[in-house]
Amino acid sequence: MTQKILVLPGDGIGPEITAQASRILAACQARGLDVEVFEGLLGGAAYDAHGEPLPAETLEKAKAARGILLGAVGGPKWDKIEDLAKRPEKGLLGVRKQLGLFGNLRPAITYPQLASASSLKPELVAGLDIMIVRELTGGIYFGQPRGIEERDGERVGFNTYVYSESEIERIGRVAFEMAQKRSKKLCSVDKANVLEVTILWREVMERLAPEYPDVELSHMYVDNAAMQLVRAPKQFDVVVTGNMFGDILSDAAAMLTGSIGMLPSASLNESGQGMYEPCHGSAPDIAGQGIANPLATILSVAMMLRYSLDAPAMAKRIEDAVGKVLDDGLRTADIAAEGTRTVSTAEMGDAVLAAF
Amino acid sequence: MTQKILVLPGDGIGPEITAQASRILAACQARGLDVEVFEGLLGGAAYDAHGEPLPAETLEKAKAARGILLGAVGGPKWDKIEDLAKRPEKGLLGVRKQLGLFGNLRPAITYPQLASASSLKPELVAGLDIMIVRELTGGIYFGQPRGIEERDGERVGFNTYVYSESEIERIGRVAFEMAQKRSKKLCSVDKANVLEVTILWREVMERLAPEYPDVELSHMYVDNAAMQLVRAPKQFDVVVTGNMFGDILSDAAAMLTGSIGMLPSASLNESGQGMYEPCHGSAPDIAGQGIANPLATILSVAMMLRYSLDAPAMAKRIEDAVGKVLDDGLRTADIAAEGTRTVSTAEMGDAVLAAF
Ligand SMILES: CC(C)[C@H](C(=O)O)[C@@H](O)C(=O)O
Ligand SMILES: CC(C)[C@H](C(=O)O)[C@@H](O)C(=O)O
Repeated sequence: MTQKILVLPGDGIGPEITAQASRILAACQARGLDVEVFEGLLGGAAYDAHGEPLPAETLEKAKAARGILLGAVGGPKWDKIEDLAKRPEKGLLGVRKQLGLFGNLRPAITYPQLASASSLKPELVAGLDIMIVRELTGGIYFGQPRGIEERDGERVGFNTYVYSESEIERIGRVAFEMAQKRSKKLCSVDKANVLEVTILWREVMERLAPEYPDVELSHMYVDNAAMQLVRAPKQFDVVVTGNMFGDILSDAAAMLTGSIGMLPSASLNESGQGMYEPCHGSAPDIAGQGIANPLATILSVAMMLRYSLDAPAMAKRIEDAVGKVLDDGLRTADIAAEGTRTVSTAEMGDAVLAAF
Repeated sequence: MTQKILVLPGDGIGPEITAQASRILAACQARGLDVEVFEGLLGGAAYDAHGEPLPAETLEKAKAARGILLGAVGGPKWDKIEDLAKRPEKGLLGVRKQLGLFGNLRPAITYPQLASASSLKPELVAGLDIMIVRELTGGIYFGQPRGIEERDGERVGFNTYVYSESEIERIGRVAFEMAQKRSKKLCSVDKANVLEVTILWREVMERLAPEYPDVELSHMYVDNAAMQLVRAPKQFDVVVTGNMFGDILSDAAAMLTGSIGMLPSASLNESGQGMYEPCHGSAPDIAGQGIANPLATILSVAMMLRYSLDAPAMAKRIEDAVGKVLDDGLRTADIAAEGTRTVSTAEMGDAVLAAF
């Protein structure tokens, strides 16, 4: 059965990087991947065209797709929109929520060819390979009540950090299963010394643990986790945490690899339907210059093949092609270094295609 | 008028490090500082003695004190206490709240003698000097409603992230004034693309800005701030943020200096009454061995002299004494390096006293 793939270029460098990833997708089709690829508008691009960041048409297409490839959304152009519900980011959050993409996988990997690009000392990040499992459709991002209102003569802003046992269990199982496939070590991050919601989080993780006797579960407070990531990141393998803490820690982890232009991510629901996007943002400062790094988006295609399309061999071919291009010394400007050749977004796409 | 100083040794290495800091305090008295020093129980130590982490007697003493010197609270021994209200951490939070210590100053400084101890490349952290201003008595730490309850047949945990305009304004003014005294750059960290409470936060910061025309205010999302701290920490000078984000970012910043054993902090209320404590924790794994680093606690005394006791010259003498001891090559185990001499907690105290 032909599967549908939706490409959402989004904003900033989004169109440039998804253009290259789409070429790889086309090459996969040429090699027999049975998919139909179509495009849609999300984020600022959708707001400009239709006055809303997630038009009904895009949502319909997204629901029908097995895999969604997203560039990135947002930029200063739309930061002044008064109505929070119309901002580009809300389009992204809408897709996550509407499709139930609760399981966010954010690998933080140091590519051997790029270890020196890290701001950490090379020995601390060489060979680093962390998988952050972030809950993506709950927590304070979506909790009710929320808003800004008048109380006792002044305005008060409020949001609700909330998780139910079933939400925690669902993401916990994703993380335990991930740990079983990897080093069998799982670290759950919370703030159980202060926040009740994370006391429940810790309790549910503990309750699941006996079902995964081969996995060693540990707990860490979020402030300590932020420190430990900086101090000795290789102590981590699989990390599971809620939406907000996951947002912060996964970005820190991605940055410390030095390979942030290289890192893909997956957001999955229970049926394996998924959205795939680079970890980096829309980089409006370099948009339109043809210099953005398309590799994280290309590697997001590989993740899509692996997690949503059951085509791990083809995923591996893409990853190997990216590895070869790096070995050959090609770099976009963000990862340029002495002794390497700086290429444009399109040239990087060419090179990966040639190596594929 | 004789001012009262309360020393709260707390748990883990707390008693060892406050013992050394108390010797410095005594030396300050000998040099004419007009204070009366007394001790109290807080945290696990208080729980063990009185069944609660913040006994009424301690709270009374704290209220009467101009300055409080805290070691650290908490440890695995008390992590199993079922009732969250009885945990050591709640003693600390209780003092903060009861005394209205809303302004938390957390410097992240790289000591030139210790730059190589950072996990970051030396050029990225040499000369680093960030001041994180964290709101300490509001936000999700204290927001109501909170708890764990049954809803639709399952348990749900919830906390409330809430700030009023006046709370934001109060900490904003501390940060703007701090920026005026330093490089005149202030970065406010929020998640205004997702959370309403931080939209209000950003709005209030913007509203204050014209009153401090010499300060350049910028805004950054918390996930980006976590990345930027890792990538290029020297871009920051004064950072202001809420309780939870401040907890995470200040620990990350402290760790990346490589000098975490050296970093003091202050928590102030509107009348200048303050609690002073090291940034590091109670380190139960090395408690009782006489090897903990007392310098952050000794430097906390210096901060107390500066912010609560109006004795900046004496504060400077303590800081200079610490600098001299480092120059002389003395190090506790946590900051030991080739070519330096590893000393015990007490020996480090001796050395600072001798240099004072
Ligand atoms: C754009 C923003 C809403 C989003 C988030 O906070 O989840 C982004 O930072 C991410 O991590 O995917
Ligand atoms: C011990 C804990 C409650 C406390 C906090 O989270 O505020 C600590 O991490 C700190 O930063 O002072």
